[in-house]
Amino acid sequence: MEPIPQAPPGAARPGGRTARTRGQVLEAVASLLLEGGFDAVTMDAVAARSGIHRTTIYRRWRDPGALLADSFEAAREQPWQPPDTGSLLGDLTEINQQIVTALTAEPSVTRALITASFRSPAAAEALQRFWDDRFTTAAVVVERAAPDADPRTILVASCAPIFYELALMRSPATPDMAARYARSATAAATT
Amino acid sequence: MEPIPQAPPGAARPGGRTARTRGQVLEAVASLLLEGGFDAVTMDAVAARSGIHRTTIYRRWRDPGALLADSFEAAREQPWQPPDTGSLLGDLTEINQQIVTALTAEPSVTRALITASFRSPAAAEALQRFWDDRFTTAAVVVERAAPDADPRTILVASCAPIFYELALMRSPATPDMAARYARSATAAATT
Repeated sequence: MEPIPQAPPGAARPGGRTARTRGQVLEAVASLLLEGGFDAVTMDAVAARSGIHRTTIYRRWRDPGALLADSFEAAREQPWQPPDTGSLLGDLTEINQQIVTALTAEPSVTRALITASFRSPAAAEALQRFWDDRFTTAAVVVERAAPDADPRTILVASCAPIFYELALMRSPATPDMAARYARSATAAATT
Repeated sequence: MEPIPQAPPGAARPGGRTARTRGQVLEAVASLLLEGGFDAVTMDAVAARSGIHRTTIYRRWRDPGALLADSFEAAREQPWQPPDTGSLLGDLTEINQQIVTALTAEPSVTRALITASFRSPAAAEALQRFWDDRFTTAAVVVERAAPDADPRTILVASCAPIFYELALMRSPATPDMAARYARSATAAATT
């Protein structure tokens, strides 16, 4: 729903050496992932890149899958508010546009994490948790406009075509795609 | 749209030693992919599994990416007829059901090929060609029921949620999912 933040998610959080360590480690994970994909995210490379001791990294994350899962987890912890534009079509378009932006950024941490989720079951579960969480938060967008519709069905109907085109088919984004599929989902919600 | 055939695609084609060789090689690719994923599809393993000489395989396919791309290509060549149930909702539901079946088969060559497409640009392009081709063939389903709608938009609105749930989120299939998203796409086509 939101772009998975390109900045280290932990870094902006208040306080603590633990939070800072996590921020540095996840920043290293993101940059290694962008450079070389899943295979580049080794414990040694993360230690070297982050400047955090291997022992500390192993104690907290165990393996690269756990590091990727925690990257989704950190994204999930970021505050996110669903849009409130005054119409269902406007809100769904805005959410879709956020996804288009995240998936077409160069480089795109979101796209790299989705790709990596096909290599690690832990990352795949964390990806699912991230989106379930965002859909739960976004349900209000559907509920206030179409009380009889199932929020998750409408949100998936709106967003899934964006993931299909950009993440699965790796087609280029088109200027109208966010609005186009928001429109078809809005029709479904209000029919 | 159709399940990517679990049987060796080339094997059923008429004639020739070339077609038979291709069938044996692609059958070996599919079985290695199911057993060990992309990393298991090495030229040596394909030669050993298929009983076809390495030189022959290298001459025709060059690398594992080309073997995966040709697996999609062989699936694309399989004849496929869009359903004609008498209604747009019925046709879209049937198409979605075929995708659910392909993605939830155990083991699923379709799911394995989608996963592999994240490792090989050639396979990703072939995946896109396969679906573009199926969507072109299926356009008639939308055209005869909703002449003002854009066929590809409606087909993607109908199918993409299935890919999102089963291939990207790796959620379990639900009995009503094929019909549910066919319904939302039908509403979009006729509003």
